[in-house]
Amino acid sequence: MKQNRIIRNVRIVTPTGSEARRGDEMRELTVFSHGLIVIVDGTIRFAGNEEDCPAELLAMHEYEYTDGGGRVALPGFVDSHTHLVFGGYRPDEFSWRLKGDTYMSIMERGGGIQSTVNATRECSVADMSEKARWFLRRMSEMGVTTVEAKSGYGLDVDTERRQLEAIRQLAEDSTVGLNVVSTFLGAHAVPTEYKGRTSEYVDHIIAEMLPAFRGLAKCCDIFCEKNVFEIEDSRRLLKAAREMGYAIKLHADEIVTLGGAELAAELGALSADHLLHVSDEGVRRMAEAGVVATLLPLTAFALKEPYAPARKFIEAGAAVALATDLNPGSCFSGSIPLTIALACIYMGMSVEETITALTLNGAAALGMAAEAGSLEAGKRGDVVILEFDNINYLPYYVGMNCVRTTVHGGRVVYSAPE
Amino acid sequence: MKQNRIIRNVRIVTPTGSEARRGDEMRELTVFSHGLIVIVDGTIRFAGNEEDCPAELLAMHEYEYTDGGGRVALPGFVDSHTHLVFGGYRPDEFSWRLKGDTYMSIMERGGGIQSTVNATRECSVADMSEKARWFLRRMSEMGVTTVEAKSGYGLDVDTERRQLEAIRQLAEDSTVGLNVVSTFLGAHAVPTEYKGRTSEYVDHIIAEMLPAFRGLAKCCDIFCEKNVFEIEDSRRLLKAAREMGYAIKLHADEIVTLGGAELAAELGALSADHLLHVSDEGVRRMAEAGVVATLLPLTAFALKEPYAPARKFIEAGAAVALATDLNPGSCFSGSIPLTIALACIYMGMSVEETITALTLNGAAALGMAAEAGSLEAGKRGDVVILEFDNINYLPYYVGMNCVRTTVHGGRVVYSAPE
Repeated sequence: MKQNRIIRNVRIVTPTGSEARRGDEMRELTVFSHGLIVIVDGTIRFAGNEEDCPAELLAMHEYEYTDGGGRVALPGFVDSHTHLVFGGYRPDEFSWRLKGDTYMSIMERGGGIQSTVNATRECSVADMSEKARWFLRRMSEMGVTTVEAKSGYGLDVDTERRQLEAIRQLAEDSTVGLNVVSTFLGAHAVPTEYKGRTSEYVDHIIAEMLPAFRGLAKCCDIFCEKNVFEIEDSRRLLKAAREMGYAIKLHADEIVTLGGAELAAELGALSADHLLHVSDEGVRRMAEAGVVATLLPLTAFALKEPYAPARKFIEAGAAVALATDLNPGSCFSGSIPLTIALACIYMGMSVEETITALTLNGAAALGMAAEAGSLEAGKRGDVVILEFDNINYLPYYVGMNCVRTTVHGGRVVYSAPE
Repeated sequence: MKQNRIIRNVRIVTPTGSEARRGDEMRELTVFSHGLIVIVDGTIRFAGNEEDCPAELLAMHEYEYTDGGGRVALPGFVDSHTHLVFGGYRPDEFSWRLKGDTYMSIMERGGGIQSTVNATRECSVADMSEKARWFLRRMSEMGVTTVEAKSGYGLDVDTERRQLEAIRQLAEDSTVGLNVVSTFLGAHAVPTEYKGRTSEYVDHIIAEMLPAFRGLAKCCDIFCEKNVFEIEDSRRLLKAAREMGYAIKLHADEIVTLGGAELAAELGALSADHLLHVSDEGVRRMAEAGVVATLLPLTAFALKEPYAPARKFIEAGAAVALATDLNPGSCFSGSIPLTIALACIYMGMSVEETITALTLNGAAALGMAAEAGSLEAGKRGDVVILEFDNINYLPYYVGMNCVRTTVHGGRVVYSAPE
């Protein structure tokens, strides 16, 4: 399904490079006002001003054409933190929370993750991937071309495997229209079978799951949090995962300041995520170690929590990514427009920083900055054309979708109704 | 284009009656689990459980059919406060505001409303209505079937007339798929030509505009605010409008506590809107007088202002409506999903209250509660079918559109992609 396509008459706005942009670099975007993007067999061969495009490239292939009408073209968005595959829904729990229950107290009541675990254990691979497809289509409409999907609602070998197989099916299905990247999150919660025996569950993951899922998941993640998986168990699990070839990630310092950020730096994780309660030392160490800070403002918004300190990270020279955290509990939302609004209005990020966070830095959080996240020759032909000719519309059109066309690997996978 | 349609297999959830629901009544929704809605020539003839529908009604006409698959059916949403028709956009100003400029200081710098006024004065009726159409399609996708549109970016007789004519064109065009209600807002700002001569501008409105636009606008509104139109000028203008047959509305107590709410109660306005800084006395008087409190949380969100005190109004026995305030300045958003999220998560409104606020009470804020805003025989055949079978998905699916099908006057005007 890969295609040759020429996108012309666009204003290209893109970060550049094949690694995360850190600190001040996040606001440095390259702009081509008379932009042309040439995609051959799904890969960008040229992105720049039309007059600089080598004529032989245009002559060398047959192309389909998209006229951007002078609108902005951005790299496809990367949603680098989602819990895309799950059974059931939890709409009623949401109202409990509005009445004052905390995330942890809902979990302690046997709601929360465990209720999704129970529903997911009942699901076949086909059920899971069919349900996920519906969300993927919504994401595509919002310009997402790369999405990370975690397991973590099985918490047993069979169900975790089925989740990862569902994710693989989606990743291999060219009709999906997004790159899907798989993360194993067996350590999302301690399943009831292991209640009070957290370390034994970690042993079980290390002995039975990590070896079994090699090749099936690219990354390994853990919910590192007080009273769930604390620092020692997290270190042990992530070291084992790293040795087996997984890239590693952490849910860190979401509910209390525990030192997850510092652990991420120590272990050279791709990213630490959430970070609402990160310590200043954690910020500093992540910046030094080049760990991407993946911030998830939709979750903070839904939980009425304070937002993660985006500016502290940027000012410390760290790389910030933004992602949705789509999941059936704390944040049932994949809204890219609302993520942008929250970043710009409530987290003090500029539009330029927000774009970098949702593209190249998101790709870096998945170890994919060399292949996605910017509009440059050699990268995937993943492009978003906005409805407008100015990036300032992204936060200005508050919570509304600005995407006119989504191109994935050179193929148009979404066009807004007129 | 009006149609006969049967919508079956839905869970009907609706407020009832032909006037605003106040206080505790706002949470009383009627539910029919095996719902059937029969629409004849654009008007609901039956809405209730399928088994209670008179067989002769089904036999009497030919119908098109919609199967709701057990999902929730709500009355079409009413967006009772928008500035739909305008020239230009102001994306760059948005970034000024993010850097600390206030609404008033932007206005004082000659930005703000005046810059839209300048752009609108350049627009033809056709330009205006074509641009508005694009927003109306987005609204329809979010389940809006009735929308109020204000003038107020002309501030001179000719341009205000063109705005109102554009609104009339939209209202009369059956392809639009929404009921469009027109409000004259000549007193939106003092135009530069009248700088320092506010009362003379009010005289001009009363003498030249109000008489000229009778029949072209249903309602008359004013931006009642310190240093703009203060209480005395507001009273004078609204009394004149009322005498000429306009229903009256106010932008009240948005920026400071000025007494707009009390004035709305004194004059028997349909609604007072914004109300971020309403006094307790204003709340009490509005409740007593039955003035609808139209709250606009998207604007507060975009401006990082505190939300209007929804619970105070409800607890005082007032009727609360929710609307978007779509406009090119303070709130360029028509997001119904985000309005719902803000109401439930940040304003303490229940899902039931939010539904009433977006349907029947919105209709009441437009003097249309007898014809729209609920699923009952005699009302317009304006129905929203959600993607889900439970109203708790509305805030739970945070900031995301839950609408599967929008029916306007019996006609399907939007169906979500599968």
